[in-house]
Amino acid sequence: MAPVFSDFDKKMMRRCFQLARKGQARVHPNPMVGAVIVKDGRIIAEGYHHYFGGPHAEVEAFKNAKEDVTGATLYCNLEPCCHTNKKTPPCTPLIISKKIARVVVSNIDPNPEVSGKGLQQLREAGIEVQAGLLAEEGEELNRFFFVSMREQRPYVTVKVAQSVDGFISAKRGSQTWLTGDKSVRYVHRLRSFHDAVLVGSGTIVSDDPQLNVRYARGPNPKRIILAPHLQVPLNAAVFSDKHTEQTVVITSDLAASHKVKALEEAGVTVYRLPGTADGLLDLNDVMRVLWEKFKIHSLLVEGGQKVFSAFLNAGLWDEWIVLQAPKILGQGVTALSDVKPTAFTLKKIVRLGEDAALIFTKKKSDKAS
Amino acid sequence: MAPVFSDFDKKMMRRCFQLARKGQARVHPNPMVGAVIVKDGRIIAEGYHHYFGGPHAEVEAFKNAKEDVTGATLYCNLEPCCHTNKKTPPCTPLIISKKIARVVVSNIDPNPEVSGKGLQQLREAGIEVQAGLLAEEGEELNRFFFVSMREQRPYVTVKVAQSVDGFISAKRGSQTWLTGDKSVRYVHRLRSFHDAVLVGSGTIVSDDPQLNVRYARGPNPKRIILAPHLQVPLNAAVFSDKHTEQTVVITSDLAASHKVKALEEAGVTVYRLPGTADGLLDLNDVMRVLWEKFKIHSLLVEGGQKVFSAFLNAGLWDEWIVLQAPKILGQGVTALSDVKPTAFTLKKIVRLGEDAALIFTKKKSDKAS
Repeated sequence: MAPVFSDFDKKMMRRCFQLARKGQARVHPNPMVGAVIVKDGRIIAEGYHHYFGGPHAEVEAFKNAKEDVTGATLYCNLEPCCHTNKKTPPCTPLIISKKIARVVVSNIDPNPEVSGKGLQQLREAGIEVQAGLLAEEGEELNRFFFVSMREQRPYVTVKVAQSVDGFISAKRGSQTWLTGDKSVRYVHRLRSFHDAVLVGSGTIVSDDPQLNVRYARGPNPKRIILAPHLQVPLNAAVFSDKHTEQTVVITSDLAASHKVKALEEAGVTVYRLPGTADGLLDLNDVMRVLWEKFKIHSLLVEGGQKVFSAFLNAGLWDEWIVLQAPKILGQGVTALSDVKPTAFTLKKIVRLGEDAALIFTKKKSDKAS
Repeated sequence: MAPVFSDFDKKMMRRCFQLARKGQARVHPNPMVGAVIVKDGRIIAEGYHHYFGGPHAEVEAFKNAKEDVTGATLYCNLEPCCHTNKKTPPCTPLIISKKIARVVVSNIDPNPEVSGKGLQQLREAGIEVQAGLLAEEGEELNRFFFVSMREQRPYVTVKVAQSVDGFISAKRGSQTWLTGDKSVRYVHRLRSFHDAVLVGSGTIVSDDPQLNVRYARGPNPKRIILAPHLQVPLNAAVFSDKHTEQTVVITSDLAASHKVKALEEAGVTVYRLPGTADGLLDLNDVMRVLWEKFKIHSLLVEGGQKVFSAFLNAGLWDEWIVLQAPKILGQGVTALSDVKPTAFTLKKIVRLGEDAALIFTKKKSDKAS
């Protein structure tokens, strides 16, 4: 029987989400987790996971408790961990030792090393355990974590800045600035909480982007450049600025060796994949490399036309964000080319000054079950 | 010196706007007007213009007053009328005879027969008169009225239902249903408060629309069909349903006479304009005819590609509404073709179920001053 939660339980879990969010852009690829300890209907301590490698939310909450937690309820949006092959000690023994009476969580940890085992340990210690409170909200909060764990690939956010008539640039090979300041800050914020951003070689040529975080707080993501033929200028920003160790070029066996060498000498990581019959890269291969080799859990795809179209056609995306600029270009490079009809679900609309961000997810029936 | 209005004044004017809106879809082409009578800081009567040809808001308010209005303040979003060549008697003599002490209005009537003269008459009668309270909101409420009076043409709302990649149909000559139920109701509501809807002959051929109000309350608009060569099937809904007297075809001297005759026999009004050199219609001519001959004050343009593109290029539009469906079509007929770059201002975003309505207006600098 599914547990029945009170309004107070929900309020406490929402507080966990709120606390968890404070770790955004700092904890990834870990999930964001918040914890609240309640005794006699009163919050006596709170905690959250601050940064990757730092103490877990439960540990923080216990640390912040100024009174005895014996018999208290612990709310936590994610199942407490019980595995040991990681940076921090497991949380379940601590919870048991603190004589917590009840544990309420939103989501079960999808990590196969935990996945229900943490809760089981708590139950075996005589603690009342309930899971599934506001599970959808919890899953949305940590969508990068859940989807990447489930699909064993990075969570993919695609960001397309386009005119009302669907163009991303007025002319091939040159950049057209479409969106306003608020959209720029929005994009930099997106970058700050994704592990990596990805563009194609065409975007390097036309826009020469820095692909870092300047108009938001947070760490710079890794910069992934898809360049099957390595037709990119060596003096591009991503190959010549102070952060070339953050740049990964994925190329094919068609790439000229001297160019690979030059990039490597500049501090760039170059990864070769076998090219496809049409001289391109297989996106499934790319995703596997990003996941296994580079431990990328979340990926922000920023262009251009070929890259957008390939990700759409391969179904390798989770969120499709259209930044709609209030402009008609009349002609230019369309966001997509040679794509198959696709149905979206509208998740959210955000007004960004004069631009509108339309955030789409996959239509339910199209999602892999 | 500009008058200083109190928060109470603003509250009363917002109430006028609220009352005025009750006449939407019933009073056009008249403006929507509401009136509130206040005495000793208390509303003692309210009224609004209910339907075209009916009593004005001020008259309604006086009728509803259950106590003596002597010395009261009259709030009204539009300057009271003083001209006589119309359906109802002028309001200024009534206001004077009722011994109103103060009159506060939002907007001056742009009708040259009134335009300040109404307020002048009140002032000359010793009444304290103030204008300009929440003038922008008042102008927005009656934008059809103000723009059409000023520009001497219908206010033009363009409604484009399109996919995320900018297509209005997957294939030329056939209809693609893009938007959901809420968008359909939204469009029918738009129709209900515009004097007329307009489409090109291509839309009649591909969609065979009824262009009436079925999924909203309110009157059916006139149906304007632009068909320079009269290449339209005589059995189309707009030419053969029970409301052909609502259909106006605007064609050129290139149209075959027998077809004109057949349409006229079906009850359709056919208006011939000289064709342009490229065998099309001059939109400025069309607008003049709609304004002068058919007294159209507000026009909803519903398609298709040629019509959208012509209105955009001619700058003959006031509101550009994009109904963004959550779909990628990949190919098909684009909303626009051969248009010049145009900058919009984002006025409003409305979520309509799975669709997003982006409402644009002209960029301020592009507006005729």
